[in-house]
Amino acid sequence: MGLNVAKKIIKNHIIKGEMIPGSEISIKIDQTLTQDSTGTMAYLQFEALGIDRVKTKRSTAYIDHNILQSGPENADDHLYIQTVAKRHGIYFSKPGNGICHQVNLERFGVPGDTLLGSDSHTPTGGGIGMLAIGAGGLDVAVAMGGGEYYINMPSIVKVNLKGKLKHWISAKDIILEVLKRLTVKGGVGKIFEYCGEGIKSLSVPERATITNMGAELGATTSLFPSDEVTYEFLKAQGREKDFIEIKADSDAVYDEEVEINLDELQPLAACPHSPDNVDNITKLKNIKVNQVCIGSCTNSSYADMMKVAKILEGKTVNENVSLVIAPGSKQVLNMLAKNGALASIVSSGARVLECACGPCIGMGQSPSTDAVSLRTFNRNFEGRSGTVSAKVYIVSPEVAAASALTGYITDPRDLGEFFKVETPEKFLINDNLIVPPAPEGEEVEVVRGPNIKPFPKAKPLSDTVEGKVLTKVSDNITTDHIMPSNAKLLPYRSNIPYLSEYCLTPCDKDFPKKAKENGGGFIVAGGNYGQGSSREHAALAPLYLGIKAVLAKSFARIHMANLINNGIMPLVFINVEDYDKIDAMDELVIDNAVEQMETGVVIVKNKTKNQEYKMSLNITDRQKKMIKAGGLLNLVKSN
Amino acid sequence: MGLNVAKKIIKNHIIKGEMIPGSEISIKIDQTLTQDSTGTMAYLQFEALGIDRVKTKRSTAYIDHNILQSGPENADDHLYIQTVAKRHGIYFSKPGNGICHQVNLERFGVPGDTLLGSDSHTPTGGGIGMLAIGAGGLDVAVAMGGGEYYINMPSIVKVNLKGKLKHWISAKDIILEVLKRLTVKGGVGKIFEYCGEGIKSLSVPERATITNMGAELGATTSLFPSDEVTYEFLKAQGREKDFIEIKADSDAVYDEEVEINLDELQPLAACPHSPDNVDNITKLKNIKVNQVCIGSCTNSSYADMMKVAKILEGKTVNENVSLVIAPGSKQVLNMLAKNGALASIVSSGARVLECACGPCIGMGQSPSTDAVSLRTFNRNFEGRSGTVSAKVYIVSPEVAAASALTGYITDPRDLGEFFKVETPEKFLINDNLIVPPAPEGEEVEVVRGPNIKPFPKAKPLSDTVEGKVLTKVSDNITTDHIMPSNAKLLPYRSNIPYLSEYCLTPCDKDFPKKAKENGGGFIVAGGNYGQGSSREHAALAPLYLGIKAVLAKSFARIHMANLINNGIMPLVFINVEDYDKIDAMDELVIDNAVEQMETGVVIVKNKTKNQEYKMSLNITDRQKKMIKAGGLLNLVKSN
Repeated sequence: MGLNVAKKIIKNHIIKGEMIPGSEISIKIDQTLTQDSTGTMAYLQFEALGIDRVKTKRSTAYIDHNILQSGPENADDHLYIQTVAKRHGIYFSKPGNGICHQVNLERFGVPGDTLLGSDSHTPTGGGIGMLAIGAGGLDVAVAMGGGEYYINMPSIVKVNLKGKLKHWISAKDIILEVLKRLTVKGGVGKIFEYCGEGIKSLSVPERATITNMGAELGATTSLFPSDEVTYEFLKAQGREKDFIEIKADSDAVYDEEVEINLDELQPLAACPHSPDNVDNITKLKNIKVNQVCIGSCTNSSYADMMKVAKILEGKTVNENVSLVIAPGSKQVLNMLAKNGALASIVSSGARVLECACGPCIGMGQSPSTDAVSLRTFNRNFEGRSGTVSAKVYIVSPEVAAASALTGYITDPRDLGEFFKVETPEKFLINDNLIVPPAPEGEEVEVVRGPNIKPFPKAKPLSDTVEGKVLTKVSDNITTDHIMPSNAKLLPYRSNIPYLSEYCLTPCDKDFPKKAKENGGGFIVAGGNYGQGSSREHAALAPLYLGIKAVLAKSFARIHMANLINNGIMPLVFINVEDYDKIDAMDELVIDNAVEQMETGVVIVKNKTKNQEYKMSLNITDRQKKMIKAGGLLNLVKSN
Repeated sequence: MGLNVAKKIIKNHIIKGEMIPGSEISIKIDQTLTQDSTGTMAYLQFEALGIDRVKTKRSTAYIDHNILQSGPENADDHLYIQTVAKRHGIYFSKPGNGICHQVNLERFGVPGDTLLGSDSHTPTGGGIGMLAIGAGGLDVAVAMGGGEYYINMPSIVKVNLKGKLKHWISAKDIILEVLKRLTVKGGVGKIFEYCGEGIKSLSVPERATITNMGAELGATTSLFPSDEVTYEFLKAQGREKDFIEIKADSDAVYDEEVEINLDELQPLAACPHSPDNVDNITKLKNIKVNQVCIGSCTNSSYADMMKVAKILEGKTVNENVSLVIAPGSKQVLNMLAKNGALASIVSSGARVLECACGPCIGMGQSPSTDAVSLRTFNRNFEGRSGTVSAKVYIVSPEVAAASALTGYITDPRDLGEFFKVETPEKFLINDNLIVPPAPEGEEVEVVRGPNIKPFPKAKPLSDTVEGKVLTKVSDNITTDHIMPSNAKLLPYRSNIPYLSEYCLTPCDKDFPKKAKENGGGFIVAGGNYGQGSSREHAALAPLYLGIKAVLAKSFARIHMANLINNGIMPLVFINVEDYDKIDAMDELVIDNAVEQMETGVVIVKNKTKNQEYKMSLNITDRQKKMIKAGGLLNLVKSN
């Protein structure tokens, strides 16, 4: 039976388990990447493992998130990452060098390799034929230490691209079409593998736009084969030696199939406030635009910027629009500065920002109240821009640039004559912002500013677990509720004691205080607890506050894994009505906790109400070991 | 008796008074400028005057301070300024167009004109032969409405520049030498007029570097004559029609004279934490550098940037240095993007920021803890960078760029072969980010976001003024203590109710609470109360909190004027020991306040201690009218 591309790469890297969808496997990780908002914690965890030198083929630490620096915290974090990287064999990409996914694609992506990154858009690397997966910082730390990465084997979806994109239709419209059809939940537990005649006309950066936003489907990852297009890209990056061809066997089998006819695609937009709320641009034409932002890890390549520059050339941005443009990498910016395209962009009236994530993560450029903001980014969640009332539309660079000129959402097909931007034969190569690790790491002193606090360490499970119900929350609590993340809190990602002061405060402003006064305790929650971003700080802050278990109707997958990784029991009500019987400040106890945990069913006694609740703990044997040991870090260290 | 340049311009604009140093005069204002952190308040005040259209020759509203935009507040402020400008006849310079002083110099500066700007570095315009003065927003609002500007006639200091700058020595070193000699207090009540053979070799932007940092002397303003150099600059800006020659008469008389021999100047640096703490670079050579910032209103011209680009060309920024560069205007950025210089800058590894004030006002790029930061800016006050422990050195672009390459403070004379950057014969002219006012202003709707709050209005002086001493503070309280201004509070400059929650909190964290609970009252202070920045928010917040008078040993000049402008009495202890007799929460009363105020001596009764204090109110008749009317705005409206 023939193999598809995903299975070929997994087969080459599998350590434990079998490639049966849904069953746990472990794979070897070739490369890792971190960015600065997750990286500090990942490196603190790596240090706690006590390993001198990373054991991956290549690990890179990028700085792209916290680059505004209003106070010393961010610069301190960057200095910590720079020195810890140099000491332990990790490449360091200095601030200014660009967005991790764009730079990694340009300079380090290797077809057929596995890449684990502490950022949910790591699947960008699938554009070059990597198996690139986003994960928590602790998983990345373990992978840097040579540990395998555990995952449930995904099912593989074939996305068959037929035909060819028409003029002014772009890769962004392809992934928006996929999102329209499958929704933001449509990719859970799946890998999307693109194939068909349509992929031949898509460059590596275009492919990366698609795999990047596969994250918005909830997919494990997305990827393209490694073919002639991949070779041309690598050659233009001076890296043809990294090329290997990886194509699906002609008789490859897939678990599902989706077909998209590129000939029929129209310019699309994801309307407020979800990436799957997709509509045709033609239906949105009379909407007045206040802000246009072009860039982010999904649309900041050389070709993206060149298209924008050509659209803007000799024209002026509409009086009522603030147009901001952030090229994805120093390579892109440098080429634009050299070939005159940046002069066209500046001349038109665009504001040029540093090569970084910027407005995409709400790091600056929050729109005005009630504003309409068109963005070439990947997420348009409510409030993510920093302005709760803003209406953010996700569009292609072509739509964005055209609309910046008119002041209204504009169909780029109305621009007139079409032009195509080709991948250059030779990119401008100058890696002088990538600092290699020291040959002798021991000589490097790791600099820890006052904002770098030790992270909380879980303790092995005790036989009696007791405490009060510190708070009781409802359904669909997100990780943004559990651990808010905004421009004001992002600088404190390496400071769990500080962050914990904000833990769950959007639901219960006294939660941190109550947790401290009572020496920790329990959280009671409704269904889908911990949905949203993968940030492990939503487990670390509760751990710091002494949370021993969360009792919920159900858990979101990644947050549940993060809780287990940090030794916190995720208990699910077997009788859902028990949720209603518990009140905040009830005293709970779990007797014989270790023994009960092993069975998968845990009885929680309510001493206040004199009741008992039957809870399930549906986790793997490996995860049970973690809970027992007090988290993944303790488990790995003990091995 | 011959006139100097300053007196020629004043003579052309004087309305009231005589040109006798120290005596009050009023002058007509030709041009105004505002930036966004002071501008919102200035335009709210202008609106309160009820005048439809500005009466100046040209008024321009710039956006250069609050461009990070973490939240809707800044964008809302910008939209308010954009619409209020369009309605009332004011030119609007969009964000991205550059720093007010740099752009005004390039596009609007007119020799012989008077310019009043709500920013302390407005004297930059003196580089082109304007009489350019920084003032509070209310003064600027009144000037926009056609009102005269009152000032005590300064004494005029002749700064005679002899000789010519040697290679690698720059305009920055001239003003640092002046600061070294005269200190940050040496310019109070003075205008510095530069002349001598040395000025012939200084371009307009070099002259502007010098007049800009005249603000650090505490000077009223600084200026150069308008000569052939001025003509060449205006011609290169396509504005030769704006040129008039203004030179001092050969027998011009000055009040003081300073002589500087340019041949003898060395590369200098202002060391932490004051612009007058100046030392030779040769003595600082082995200091390790963590950050280098190039830009700001004092050194961000085309020539500055070209020098930096040439120094960086083909080289790489030191691994341990973060180099950030912000060109001063879109014109500069556009020219660099077009001629390849920006490509050299980017290639070297510099981070390119938006054309704005940025790190100079602590708006981003705060250095790491204890870091050494070299900056081409104008102020290195402790903590201004956003990092209290940072050590900031003020240097020329040459020193900055050279040090960025080596990682240590570096004498640019060690760079090797010298090159000179000439003023271009033709600047790139494209004013498409300057939005002209509407011909019919009434049709423009002014957009007020939720962060735009009405500003507090003072009431006419009542005959009995009573209340408690809400706080008692010591000597040398700065406007930073009275109204803290940092990256977190700057977005609220148009929201006095919000800002007032932080009023005087660095001295007394309960001050706002006590003021509210007691319905306002008095502040008792030591000497030099209100020193530092000119921000009128340090008067507006106390006004909002109901402060009726401040009793102090002495006042800093501008803050005293701001208090009077807002109807708050600045009372000075005639018997200094009375200060010691008062305690916080004592009840005070001023009987027959209006009558006493007119006499200039005010008796304050302490009801709690049964004492009386004799206070002086040493203000002009015009200022007495203001106190009586409840501030300048009420006075102007009643006229």
